[in-house]
Amino acid sequence: MLNSFRQHIQKYQKISDEQFEAILSYFEVHSLKKKEMIQEAGQTQLYNYFVIDGCLRMYTLHEKGQEITTDFALESWWLCDQKAYLGKIETDCYIQAVENSRILRISRDKEQLLIKEQPFMQIYFLQIYQKAFAAAQFRNKLFKLYSKEEIFIQFNNNFPDFVQRVPQYLIASYLGLTPEYLSEIRKKIFS
Amino acid sequence: MLNSFRQHIQKYQKISDEQFEAILSYFEVHSLKKKEMIQEAGQTQLYNYFVIDGCLRMYTLHEKGQEITTDFALESWWLCDQKAYLGKIETDCYIQAVENSRILRISRDKEQLLIKEQPFMQIYFLQIYQKAFAAAQFRNKLFKLYSKEEIFIQFNNNFPDFVQRVPQYLIASYLGLTPEYLSEIRKKIFS
Repeated sequence: MLNSFRQHIQKYQKISDEQFEAILSYFEVHSLKKKEMIQEAGQTQLYNYFVIDGCLRMYTLHEKGQEITTDFALESWWLCDQKAYLGKIETDCYIQAVENSRILRISRDKEQLLIKEQPFMQIYFLQIYQKAFAAAQFRNKLFKLYSKEEIFIQFNNNFPDFVQRVPQYLIASYLGLTPEYLSEIRKKIFS
Repeated sequence: MLNSFRQHIQKYQKISDEQFEAILSYFEVHSLKKKEMIQEAGQTQLYNYFVIDGCLRMYTLHEKGQEITTDFALESWWLCDQKAYLGKIETDCYIQAVENSRILRISRDKEQLLIKEQPFMQIYFLQIYQKAFAAAQFRNKLFKLYSKEEIFIQFNNNFPDFVQRVPQYLIASYLGLTPEYLSEIRKKIFS
């Protein structure tokens, strides 16, 4: 089960059996049931989550109480409220399992220790963060350039499996659409 | 003039005189006139830009030809179209000097060489990218949670100097508002 984590790291950085064992000692493994919460708004002791299998989502509450999904994470993706995680400040984000999931988690202190004590992991994390920043910057651009309808169509073209897999009301909450309106768009596309 | 770059690096990573000289050899220094272009859509040979003084903005064109400003960079900020820069693919973004500016630029190949040959820079770049990702993720959340008017008010409260400094039509193009509408909001706030 943890082999997928090793394969993922090895895409960026070759590691030996001993090095992989050493890395694992900084993490905790957790199994989550569908809809289980692993982070609540108001927490200050935060973790960075790596999805072994399953799917997580992060959301925050609009002042009117509505859930706004800000991020999803599938297999081999990382997820955290990065600003609160780095600054060790209170988060306003919730993290929930969308499906039964297995995850690894690491605290900010442990991550810093890992990078210091196992410096070969610097190159891994550097590349992960470069890609995460590229994806977030690209997403910002998409949301500025296109309407929510156009973004859903692109999303559906680029990640058809994801759109099939995740409940539609969560995709609607990610795009800022009502579930009813998203359902209309889907009917148009798939008819 | 390059001392500000050194001070900036030293916030993250102590370096000696020799190390700083070595780092500089990977960069080129450029002076830019206000409105000068340093990147055009269609380019594939891209650079990451560090602002010594002045201000840059990145924008892309909407299919209707309208300029959409996606990012600004002030002193001690980095700027590039990260997805195209990492993948060495064609960019759809333009980068322009908003004011007379002095900048350092580094190509992706040189950046990779710098990290390999001067490994003490790994920790610097790791922290820069962690912060860049945190800022981009936070911005995504803001644009999902708040109206463009509310974002301008927050922007104005958090970065009053920036709002005074940058031409209003560029702030409007960043927020996706018409300059006329932004002017109305400003009148309301400042009256």
